[in-house]
Order: sequence, then structure tokens, then C-alpha cells
Amino acid sequence: MTEQRAPRKRGRPRGGSDSRERIIGAAVDEFGEQGYDGSTVRSIASRAGVDSALVHHYFGTKADLFAEAVGIPLRPDIDVPGIVAGPRGEVGERLVRYVLEAFEQPDIRRRGVMLMRTAIGSRLTTPLLAGFLARELIGKIAKTLGVADAELRAALVASQIAGLLLTRYVLKLAPMASASVDDIVARVGPTVQRYLFE
Amino acid sequence: MTEQRAPRKRGRPRGGSDSRERIIGAAVDEFGEQGYDGSTVRSIASRAGVDSALVHHYFGTKADLFAEAVGIPLRPDIDVPGIVAGPRGEVGERLVRYVLEAFEQPDIRRRGVMLMRTAIGSRLTTPLLAGFLARELIGKIAKTLGVADAELRAALVASQIAGLLLTRYVLKLAPMASASVDDIVARVGPTVQRYLFE
Repeated sequence: MTEQRAPRKRGRPRGGSDSRERIIGAAVDEFGEQGYDGSTVRSIASRAGVDSALVHHYFGTKADLFAEAVGIPLRPDIDVPGIVAGPRGEVGERLVRYVLEAFEQPDIRRRGVMLMRTAIGSRLTTPLLAGFLARELIGKIAKTLGVADAELRAALVASQIAGLLLTRYVLKLAPMASASVDDIVARVGPTVQRYLFE
Repeated sequence: MTEQRAPRKRGRPRGGSDSRERIIGAAVDEFGEQGYDGSTVRSIASRAGVDSALVHHYFGTKADLFAEAVGIPLRPDIDVPGIVAGPRGEVGERLVRYVLEAFEQPDIRRRGVMLMRTAIGSRLTTPLLAGFLARELIGKIAKTLGVADAELRAALVASQIAGLLLTRYVLKLAPMASASVDDIVARVGPTVQRYLFE
């Protein structure tokens, strides 16, 4: 193993680099086996043989660590609540545009489609996506809305966005796959707006 | 093999019963390998070693044969275009209610979730669901609407319905899974109505 180790990047101190990699590896295994809700920073730290404080130091929260482990260069758990908390006028359109413009980038689309296929295709990994959606997206959006039925409103938005991604990028249904981002934003934006505020 | 054959049901003539089973088996294999669009009644008949006319005689169209092969006791390809062609007032609500009331039945839900998991989870079987949706649902709804952007309107409906089924029955997101059918119909019905007619 050690003889074939690739040259280290960015001159990071060796112990640190090893710990980081071990933590990421432990996170991938732990999320995969326990789902999002069943994994904790503590259980991942323990699996990696390091202290929880070191995990927090390198990666921040559980959501940060998940984003790092999945390798998606996008943080909907930070961006989306920000959009919902912004000016109310066109939250729906801005949110749909944010998602589509992300998925139009090949690297994000490839990883996103892979994540959807994996999470939906297997009973074992479904809790991974479901837990992340519930805690880090729906939960945060609902908190931002702060009304009695906020959780259901946020989940309805998730249902339309999930169906959009599924039909356009996974099933690639012809009229969805060929429609322009602007056209879809104009048609789906008002749906999201209504689910959130009306 | 023959010694262990189960007693035949309904006293159907033996040759006929064998042919029916062989056709269903061939349909399952052919749809699985070629997808919905890549399979024809002719290719399924050839695989089963029977004449195309016999397949039509026993099962009708390719859509009929697909429904039989998948084993879902529900014919959205017949029911949904019927709903869309009905009185315009509340097509959206009636359509959402139709889908939810079907999936509230355990037998349909179990097979439907299995079909979604399989079709989305594997690159190989995705064309199966995509082709059926495109030809037998979106295509027929679009024909009923008869406007220039009918295909996209029908596909948007498919996106919301797919996302609804995904979040409520596959991911089981808490607020979606626990909401009543009436509540979801009231919130999602107007979305479907708007995609179709506004």
C-alpha cells in the first residue's frame, strides 16, 4: 500500500491528510450502511478511529460531511433555504432555475443522476436520500416558512422538484428533456410558489 | 418438470394455456432486454415461438401485453386519457385522486414501488418505464389535449405525479406519507389542472 501511495497534494501535513481520507471513507461506509438519520458525526469518527472534534474541525456539520462524502459540488441544504428566505415575489421561479442550472452542468448532473438511481433503486440506500431531504432541505425550508403546514408545503415542493429531475434527467422523457430551462422555469415556478405561499 | 406441473386452472385447453404462459414469459424477457419502445408484438411472438396473430388474440395491443407482463391490476393508459377527456372543471383533482386511490391499495402500491425502483435503479430498465410513459400515457394525453405544446403539458403532469409517488411511497417523506388523500388532492390537483389547461 504505502509504496504505491500517490504524491500528496497541496503539501498538507501527512497525518492530517490521512485522517481526512479515513474520515471520508468512514463517512461513505457509515452513510451507506446506516442511512443519513442513522449516522452521526460521533459514529463516523469512531469508525475512522479519530475524535469527533477532529471531524467537526475538518468538515463542520453532518450535512457538510455528507456533501463531501457524496462528492456533489453543490450545497442545496445551504442555497435552497437561502432562496426561500429571500424576496417573496419569485421564490418559485428562482428555486426551479437554481436546480435546473445546477443539473445542466455535466458534472453535477452525472453525480445527481447516480445518487437518484442508487437511492431509489435499493431499499437499503433509500433512507440515505430520504433522511438528507427531510433533515437538511425540507426541515430547513419549513423552519424558514414558519407556518403550521410548513413541512407539507416544503415536501410538496420536493415532490415537484424530484419529479422534474426524474423525468428530465433520468427517464429523459422527450418533451421534458428538450424543453429550455426558461420554459420549464416559467411553467413549474408558479407551482413551487403556490405550494410555498398560497 | 412435467411431473411437478401444478393442476391447470379454469379447464383451459392445454395448448392454449401453455402458449399464454410462453407469451407472457417472452414478453417479460423482451421488455426487460429491449425496453418498451424496442419491443414489438412481433418480436415477442417470435421469442415465444408463436404467431403474432395469437398474441393479439390473447392479449390485444402491446400496452395490454405490457400491463399483463408487469402484473399491475390497473390500466392508467386507458383510465388517465379518459379522465383528461372528461368534464374539464376538475380534471386535475380527479387525476391525482385516481393515482392516489390506486396506490393506497397494498397490491398496487407494492408492484408500483417495485416497478419504480427497478426502472429508475438500473440504466438497462429505465427505457422500459420511459417508453411506456411516453407512448401510452403522455402521448395519449397529448392527443386528447390537441394543442401545440400538449406533449410538454402532459410531461409536466407526469413529472408532478411521478414526484408525488416517489416522495410518498418510495422515499416515504414524513409529511407526504402521513398527509390524507383529500389534502394532497386539494393541493396538487390545481397544479395538474394548470399544467394541462392554463
